[in-house]
Amino acid sequence: MGEPGNDGSGRGGRRQEVRSQIALAAMDLFAEQGFESTTVDRIAEQAGVGRRTFFRYFRSKEDAVFPGHDERLADVVERLRTTSDEADPLQVLTEIAGLVLDMYVAEPQVSLKRFELTRQVGALRDKEIASIDRYQRVFARYLRRCWAAGADAELHAAMAAAAVVAAHNQVLRSWLRAGGSGDPHVQLRVAMAVVREKFGGRDPGAGEVVVGVVRTSAPANEVRGRVEDALRHIAT
Amino acid sequence: MGEPGNDGSGRGGRRQEVRSQIALAAMDLFAEQGFESTTVDRIAEQAGVGRRTFFRYFRSKEDAVFPGHDERLADVVERLRTTSDEADPLQVLTEIAGLVLDMYVAEPQVSLKRFELTRQVGALRDKEIASIDRYQRVFARYLRRCWAAGADAELHAAMAAAAVVAAHNQVLRSWLRAGGSGDPHVQLRVAMAVVREKFGGRDPGAGEVVVGVVRTSAPANEVRGRVEDALRHIAT
Repeated sequence: MGEPGNDGSGRGGRRQEVRSQIALAAMDLFAEQGFESTTVDRIAEQAGVGRRTFFRYFRSKEDAVFPGHDERLADVVERLRTTSDEADPLQVLTEIAGLVLDMYVAEPQVSLKRFELTRQVGALRDKEIASIDRYQRVFARYLRRCWAAGADAELHAAMAAAAVVAAHNQVLRSWLRAGGSGDPHVQLRVAMAVVREKFGGRDPGAGEVVVGVVRTSAPANEVRGRVEDALRHIAT
Repeated sequence: MGEPGNDGSGRGGRRQEVRSQIALAAMDLFAEQGFESTTVDRIAEQAGVGRRTFFRYFRSKEDAVFPGHDERLADVVERLRTTSDEADPLQVLTEIAGLVLDMYVAEPQVSLKRFELTRQVGALRDKEIASIDRYQRVFARYLRRCWAAGADAELHAAMAAAAVVAAHNQVLRSWLRAGGSGDPHVQLRVAMAVVREKFGGRDPGAGEVVVGVVRTSAPANEVRGRVEDALRHIAT
């Protein structure tokens, strides 16, 4: 979470292609010769475009790795600000996590290269982490607002926001480690169901059913018995 | 979590005092004239010590804000590596979170100044966040090792580690906001109890059954149907 890469404009394939080409060239150079000593001119040259073209797509060197950082975070802030109070907050964050994931999935090659690069260049890794933290703080602030009435709302909001980000990042990391193939959205839904199981009790969604299964060596009959006990506590 | 400040040596008060004095001078200057443009000589001058004295206490400018970063993290890594497999992992992390908190509490003035400074100087804030992330990754790795047998161990470890760090930081932040007075360890114990309530069920002993009940307005029959579906996946 935090360093999205999708263009999102309607101009389609060609624009996206040039953009990816520049981003990949930039990241190759950062990995080879370091972030500081790589110039925009060198990136443009490597990508086979002019300097002006570079700046049509990216504002800075850093922007080529983590495009549109501030704007995207501002979008999320605005979206959360205007979300209905009726909405289930963790469902809202599930959707936002899905949108962030979309941005990675839209450009697998760029996402893979970035994943590799941030493991090599500490300074970029730190920038990525700082960006992730900003999302986490925005999520925590939103949950605090939603849960303001509850006891320890601040603690729960901080923990739940951290869990949302951890779930997203875990799914993203698995997808990247597997070479960026396939659709990780199913995994994200599963992971977010776990987050909601842990933290959703503060504001349960209407009609929603979450079944959490924990592996155990107990016989299925005993599990069934315990489940039946638990069900007795649910209103019919 | 991540930028501790206690000396920890047995040489006592005077050494600690000089150390705090240098750290406070350094942070004053960083806040006034920025991190990059502040030299070690200027810090030493402001603290009323020589350059050599500065380097007896700190390795670098950054070290004056976040002292002994790498060593402290290495201590935690070593401690987790040598922890008995019998220990309750979240209890172990509760103790470690307490030790990290100790380091802040030992030097309230330095902790308060750092808190203020990282809110003013983005570059230092990012360093702090990167440091926190390193703790979180170490915790996640430890929990993965402990929970390796469980389903989705990686996801749960990532989420629980994030929750531990969030809980610690929430308690620390409240203490700092309240001016760094009093003992925040009680609050930490309460916060960590919440983490253990959420994630402690991950290490089921043989024959133990954990039933997670999430409040819902769905009819019990529907819940029962979903549960039966889930039970079909458990081996008898």
